[in-house]
Formats: sequence, structure tokens, C-alpha cells
Amino acid sequence: MDVILYGLGPIGRQILDVAARSETLHILGAVDIDPALVGRDVATLSTHSRQAGPQVVATVDDLPTELYTRNGATALHATGSRLSDVWPQLRQLLDAGLSVVSTCEELSYPWHQHPELSKEIDRYARERGRTVLGTGVNPGFVMDVLPMCLTAVFDDVQGIHVTREVDVSSRRVPLQRKVGVGLEPTRFAQMAATGKIGHVGLEESARLVAHGLSWEIDGITNAIEPTIATARHRVELGELLPGEVDGLAQRCVATTKDGRTIELDLVMRVEVEQKDEIVVTGAERHRVVIPGGLPGDTATAAITVNCAERIGGMDKGLLTMAEAGLPRYQHRSFGRGSPLPQDQSKEEDR
Amino acid sequence: MDVILYGLGPIGRQILDVAARSETLHILGAVDIDPALVGRDVATLSTHSRQAGPQVVATVDDLPTELYTRNGATALHATGSRLSDVWPQLRQLLDAGLSVVSTCEELSYPWHQHPELSKEIDRYARERGRTVLGTGVNPGFVMDVLPMCLTAVFDDVQGIHVTREVDVSSRRVPLQRKVGVGLEPTRFAQMAATGKIGHVGLEESARLVAHGLSWEIDGITNAIEPTIATARHRVELGELLPGEVDGLAQRCVATTKDGRTIELDLVMRVEVEQKDEIVVTGAERHRVVIPGGLPGDTATAAITVNCAERIGGMDKGLLTMAEAGLPRYQHRSFGRGSPLPQDQSKEEDR
Repeated sequence: MDVILYGLGPIGRQILDVAARSETLHILGAVDIDPALVGRDVATLSTHSRQAGPQVVATVDDLPTELYTRNGATALHATGSRLSDVWPQLRQLLDAGLSVVSTCEELSYPWHQHPELSKEIDRYARERGRTVLGTGVNPGFVMDVLPMCLTAVFDDVQGIHVTREVDVSSRRVPLQRKVGVGLEPTRFAQMAATGKIGHVGLEESARLVAHGLSWEIDGITNAIEPTIATARHRVELGELLPGEVDGLAQRCVATTKDGRTIELDLVMRVEVEQKDEIVVTGAERHRVVIPGGLPGDTATAAITVNCAERIGGMDKGLLTMAEAGLPRYQHRSFGRGSPLPQDQSKEEDR
Repeated sequence: MDVILYGLGPIGRQILDVAARSETLHILGAVDIDPALVGRDVATLSTHSRQAGPQVVATVDDLPTELYTRNGATALHATGSRLSDVWPQLRQLLDAGLSVVSTCEELSYPWHQHPELSKEIDRYARERGRTVLGTGVNPGFVMDVLPMCLTAVFDDVQGIHVTREVDVSSRRVPLQRKVGVGLEPTRFAQMAATGKIGHVGLEESARLVAHGLSWEIDGITNAIEPTIATARHRVELGELLPGEVDGLAQRCVATTKDGRTIELDLVMRVEVEQKDEIVVTGAERHRVVIPGGLPGDTATAAITVNCAERIGGMDKGLLTMAEAGLPRYQHRSFGRGSPLPQDQSKEEDR
């Protein structure tokens, strides 16, 4: 499969690593606006590169012309969280004939917050016979796709409660900043109020779940609170003192008219014990626990590539993960593996 | 949605309960060969019926002619585990213009054990523009679909190990018989060797996972061992003495040429602590635990109906759960819920 990397920040580099390690993915080009990257062999940016790759270019226009003579390349897009910021990039990629799998958080369920833009992206992609899909570990999997999948064995669902606790101690500095590590609580409140800190995508996850289950959301609340350090910590961002913010607790609760609820609790702080937990309640109640939690960036990179592997079999237009089939790893390191059963290859091969 | 119930045994009755409880499912007809059921109002067989239903008929030919004037009814089929036994039934349903969701265990991945028959079913369904899908909680979810879904966040998968432990103490007698409860160990061995006891579908689960991940299975082993009671137990089947078989431990291990493994361990015995556990190992290792385990029959009934709700948007032909989209609960008790975002309704509505 031919891929274009668009965005070589922390997530883009992880995606590059996944792609470079694979024997069946072919990196056709790489785009990043950073002048320090433009002109470099993309393989030198990967810890897993085995051979020379294409040069990083600054814009889609500078991508190798090979792109236009081969059919069906897919862009692995990882630049920003806000759809209005990334739409010009997505449009360029669609114009170049590419389908796009993006880690843009708002793209995981853009239909509520950006209904007109979503329609435009959908129309634009369909007209070009291409697919645009937002994914990631969160939003895109732990707090939406996996809970949806679990509801399959329920004959009634009254409530879904997902808790994800992420230890940011050893995570990258931008992530530590994003969750407010080291701030005074008052400063945290100011920055949270203006959207300068906080996880983007929690409400999108709730809306994606509701969409997938055909629930109509009647009310939705979002809250974000700082968590406070009680001991000294040394993190990559610097030294953290007791009383300073060591992360955040974010909560989104969506309710339907008939009293069904989607509760999403996300804690991202220093030295919390990592865990993901999903509780689905209906006539029965079942709990799924992932001790240690699913990882962040590496999981986002993996699901991005795994979705790209299957994108040729998906519908055209702007999709959510609810319309993108059963997400799963696709064997690539040693060739495509088993041929599909005869006459049954439509999903993968069409 | 219009549904036909085919098979009103223990699982079929559970499916009936789910359907009867719903305000949006319409039970158009019910088929069972049992003379004690034929002619009865199907609603009287449900613990949840709110109104009169159709009469149970003995064959598809006797179903209400309304079936042929409405478009797109779906059969919820629950009669047998063996594909060769149920194919004549499926064919009749396809001839009557129905798509089929079936709990037939071998149908969860029929392409290996019945390649010619699978091709025939696939062709037959396509020619009629209908879909045939095998599902259930196991096979169909816990030991195949859910593990596949989890691999989505892995950039390499070396091994998948699923353990399911089911307490059969309070389960229906046929299930207790199926796992050998009360047998002498020597008798267990004889019956296991001739396929008279044991869970059907473990190898199908392994093959479904391999199929979904595009792994080529190089070798596969199946083992079935009795578990032995160490204390007296009173179960529905009768009194169980120490030294008698109180259930079974079944194991299927599939390996690929490059050393990847799918290990499935299923324990079904009296008074075991119920639990499902999935471990996926690649560059990282993650474990998912469902304390108490997902239920059996009720979960099978639920996923059957939930798949039927989405079958209109699936490809035609013989599908596996790997091609059936993201499985999930579909809101039905209080109407279909939220309209889909405009221009995005293809999966559900086409």
C-alpha cells in the first residue's frame, strides 16, 4: 500500500515508525511545514528505517509526481486537533487523489460541532471517490469504538461509563502542557476556560457512541478540573511542587430523553495508576478492565495505519469509526498473509 | 424491521424475548418443527410478549404470505451447530427472500471446514441480493470479534490468547450435557472422540481471527479434556459426585509459518469462577479482563438481533463477523433514536 505522511510531529513520527517497519507499506512521500525537516530523507527521522525514503516536502504540491500515476494512495494525516485548521490540508490531499486517515480529534465525530463543514468534506470526498476517516486511540477507540463493540452483546443498554486514567509522567512535554502540568490552579482555570488546555475529543467520543447506537442526545455536559500534586515530582517539563497542578480530570456526560447515559471520565495526570475501564449497564451489567491501560501515541499510530490498510474497502465520503468496519490489525510485516476465501474478498480488495 | 424466527429452542426463545420486547421489531412469522409448538401463538412462548403474535408454523412454506409483499425481512435462525444440517433451512429462507442471521456455530467461519458449501451459500445469497451471517457470543464475539477489535491499536501482533471460563452450574441441561457433566471420564473420552460432546466453534473462532488479521494458519491443534469434580454438586442435570466429570477444558492453538499464535482456552464446568480474558502480545502486551464473564445465551440472542438491525447495510453474500461492520447495540425499544447525519446514512439505510 502506498502512503503519504502528512505531519511529522510526535504522532506523525510514530506513524512513520509503523510505516517504516512494514515491508508492505510504501512511503511515497512526506509533508511537513517545519523548515528544519523539509529536504531531509524521511527515513532519517524514523528509528526503524531500513532504507532511504523520499525527501520531506513543505506542501502537497511538492509531492513526487509518482503520486499521480499510481492509484489509491492513502494519506496518514497528523497535524492538528481542530477540523477548521486541518480542512485546507485534507482538501489538498483529496485534490491529489488521496484518501485520508487522520488523527485530528474533532474529525472523530465532526457532524455535531461542524455540520456544514462535515457535509462539505463528505461531498468533496465522494465526488473524488475517496474516503476521509478520523481515528486514534482516544478519541477513536478506547472511549468510543471499544465501548460500542461491547454493546453488541446487550439486548438493552441504559448506560455506558468509560474511565481512562493516563499517567503523563513519562509522556512528551506537549502532552504534559496540554493537561496543565505545573500550572497554578487559578491559571489552569483560565486556560481551561479558553480551551488552551484540555483533551480534545471527549465530547466527540460521546457523540460517536450515540451516533453508533442510534441514540439521540438530549443534553450534554463537559467539565474539566485540575488535579493537584501532593508530593514533589520530577517530570520532563520540570519540577512539580505540591499544590501545583499535576494534570486534569475531564468529564463528559451525555443523556437521552429516555434517560440513557454516556459518561466519559478521563484523568491525565502525573503518576496516576493507568487503567481503562468500560461499564455497560442494561438488563445486565458488565465491566471490562484493561489493567495498565492502552497506550497513547503508539496506539494512535497503530490504529491509523491499520485503518489505512482497510480503507480501500470502505464507503466513500466522510466516515466515522462506526462506519469503518471492524477495526483490527492487518498483517503487513511479512506480506499480506492468507489469501481471502474465494468470492469473499470484497471488503479488502475492492 | 420485520423478522422471522426460525428455531424456538433455548436460544430461539431468547431471541424471541429480545424481539418481543422491542417496539421497532415486528415478528412476521415463526418456524419450528416441534409439533408441540406448531399452531401456537408465538407470543405465548415469550416471557416478554405484549401482544398477540403470529402462529408458529412447521416450515418456511407455511409462513404468512405477507412475507412476500414486504421487502427486506430478516430471519433470526437458531436451530443447529452444523452447517450441513442447517443449509437446507438457510436455502429455504433465502428462497423466501430473507437475509439470515444465524447462531449456527460452524457458520461463524465456514470457509475452511466447508469451502465448497460456503461458496455455494455465498453465490446463492448474492444471486438473491441477500446476506447470510453467523454470529453469537461464542463463536462470534468473545473469542474472535472482541480480540480482533483489540488488535486495532497494535502495530504488530505476535500472539493472541483468549481464555473464557463459564460456570455451567445454573445453565440449561442441554448445555450441561454438551460439556459432559456427570459422565465417567472414560465415557467422556469416547464421546469427545466422536464429537458427541464439546463446544462447537473454537476452531472457527481461531480461523475467523486469522482471516480478519490476514494471517495464514500453518498448523492448528484441538484438544478437549474433562474437568473432574472434587466435591458433590447439585445441578439441574442431577447430583454430581467427586470423580465424575464436571465439565471440560477445550483448547485450540493456531500457528502461522512466522510463529504467530492464536490460543483459545475455553473452560465450561460446574462452579468455575466466570471470567473472560484476552491477551494480545506484540511489541507491547495488553490484557483485557471481563470479570464475571460475558453471558452465554442472552448475549447470543442480543448480538443476533443487533446484527440483524444492521444487515441491510452489509454486503450481500456469505459474510463473517469480520465483514459485518462494527458490531454494536442498536437502539430499538423507544424508536430508532437520532436520525443519522445527513448524507451519511448509507450504512444503515441502504
